[in-house]
Amino acid sequence: MSVNKQMKLASRPIGMPSEDTWRLESNAIPSPGPGEFLTKIEYVSLDPAMRGWMNDMKSYIPPVKIDAVMRAGTIGKVIESNHDGYKVGDYVTGSMGVQQYAVSDGSFCVKTDTFGLPPEKFLSTLGMPGFTAYFGFLEVGQPKEGETVVVSGAAGAVGSVVGQIAKIKGCRAVGIAGGPEKCKYVVDELGFDACIDYKQGDVRSGLKEHCPDGVDVYFDNVGGEILDTVLTKINRGARIPICGAISQYNNKEAVKGPSNYLSLLVNRAMMKGLVVFDWQDRYAEGGMQMAQWMQQGKLKSREHIEEGIENFYPTFCKLFNGEKKGKLILKV
Amino acid sequence: MSVNKQMKLASRPIGMPSEDTWRLESNAIPSPGPGEFLTKIEYVSLDPAMRGWMNDMKSYIPPVKIDAVMRAGTIGKVIESNHDGYKVGDYVTGSMGVQQYAVSDGSFCVKTDTFGLPPEKFLSTLGMPGFTAYFGFLEVGQPKEGETVVVSGAAGAVGSVVGQIAKIKGCRAVGIAGGPEKCKYVVDELGFDACIDYKQGDVRSGLKEHCPDGVDVYFDNVGGEILDTVLTKINRGARIPICGAISQYNNKEAVKGPSNYLSLLVNRAMMKGLVVFDWQDRYAEGGMQMAQWMQQGKLKSREHIEEGIENFYPTFCKLFNGEKKGKLILKV
Repeated sequence: MSVNKQMKLASRPIGMPSEDTWRLESNAIPSPGPGEFLTKIEYVSLDPAMRGWMNDMKSYIPPVKIDAVMRAGTIGKVIESNHDGYKVGDYVTGSMGVQQYAVSDGSFCVKTDTFGLPPEKFLSTLGMPGFTAYFGFLEVGQPKEGETVVVSGAAGAVGSVVGQIAKIKGCRAVGIAGGPEKCKYVVDELGFDACIDYKQGDVRSGLKEHCPDGVDVYFDNVGGEILDTVLTKINRGARIPICGAISQYNNKEAVKGPSNYLSLLVNRAMMKGLVVFDWQDRYAEGGMQMAQWMQQGKLKSREHIEEGIENFYPTFCKLFNGEKKGKLILKV
Repeated sequence: MSVNKQMKLASRPIGMPSEDTWRLESNAIPSPGPGEFLTKIEYVSLDPAMRGWMNDMKSYIPPVKIDAVMRAGTIGKVIESNHDGYKVGDYVTGSMGVQQYAVSDGSFCVKTDTFGLPPEKFLSTLGMPGFTAYFGFLEVGQPKEGETVVVSGAAGAVGSVVGQIAKIKGCRAVGIAGGPEKCKYVVDELGFDACIDYKQGDVRSGLKEHCPDGVDVYFDNVGGEILDTVLTKINRGARIPICGAISQYNNKEAVKGPSNYLSLLVNRAMMKGLVVFDWQDRYAEGGMQMAQWMQQGKLKSREHIEEGIENFYPTFCKLFNGEKKGKLILKV
């Protein structure tokens, strides 16, 4: 047990990554220097955005370097410390990567009081995905009571929170998800008004049925055909927060742009991109509000936890093959 | 001279309209009933948006019906009146269509004091195209001093005004236009900082050269490849007012969506559609401001005037073949 297992990026994938994309290494556990501390990582977050970090192109964050530890959000416990702000036993969330131990000087991480809640919640609704939903939907989507909100990836870590906040704010919430099981979960467990199964049928007729007053906010996690279809149903003045485009991340060809984007013109509608980091100074506010909603039973979250760092690759695949049920997390 | 020549829509075109798309008829000059007045139309405005009005689909305005007079903006003089608000000799701008005479009860038109200026200016910079540029750029584009503004269709009726207002507001203005003559006009006459000739070379390298600080506002009149290319050069927080997509209006296949739309995500940028009618109650404000800039020599406008209602079809073609020089107007 005296080694640090690390999952390193071995090559840049084209299209869907393969087993060779990463390489598992066993290295010595590092020692914290002055002003540093050592964290034993308990949980690693798996997010669709990771696919983007692997491409060698300009984005909101530099790409992961070849032979570097794969970037990932993490939560773990301080086990050794030369840092005044972190003492042994403190929980730390941050971007420590797919490995078992990490040394940090405190950058890119934050001490986290879990209030006795399961630590994995802080990689889910009380972490990045939750903040993405909270700020992206409320700040970019600007929902108003009585409006109709559609969200794709509705059973996912971000989408599930968007729809539940839509309900809290008095909106009609309609999800789009893949498969009857996910759709049932979204409606029966999360309380959405409806959920369209894009694998079963026609998204267009589903929108027609479930959004009789059109679509005022479309929170997009998937891009592709679904974005194009929703564009045909938006109302005047609609807002479309662009959070992701999971349908396009493993494309070998060019991304499919939304052919119906001129619906923005006709409807004086807006499409706006968002990156959660922009609300960094308000994470505490979002976290407090969502923790309160959780206590009140208004906001539910589900984590899908796999175990073992050696299972990183098959777990990663579950981000894209529709197999995960809830926020995907790896216990390392 | 006692007939009213009218250009009627004969069939719905697929792709580029042909000579058979319209039919010229000579009918009796109508007489105004109670509360109505008769206008002798002097000038008809030709605008890219007309192409959209001919498609049988839901848009911001119903399609022109088959056998109806082709919809168009017009300016003319009242020659007979039973309407208290309009007297003989008054100029009237409105949507009276491609014909020589029209009766109106005052809806869809407005009495226009030309202040001795040439009436055709009120179909150009002091009319819809000018208002589109003024409100669309200032309200949706939200330019700030020192920012870089790129506008496509830069020699056109809307684009030429956008770039000049950008200069008035202290921005760097870079146009995109087709052919050396238009580009020269945009820089030498209109005072843009630069103009990229998309017919000559690579728009991407043109943007690299002329927008060293990236693009903060892209006012899009053309869509297609140019929109996609500009998306690769936008800055964080950029605004993209979508005014039109002239490159796509005569497509027989689906509109080409912007493949690089995920640049909106990375850059937290916004794309928003606009329709000038939304600022109808502020046209007077925009008109006054632009008339003042014209008097001060800060805002120039050029009209390309063709003559004769029978020349409607070849004139219409000039909207799309790059032959027009300035706002396209037909004297009927």
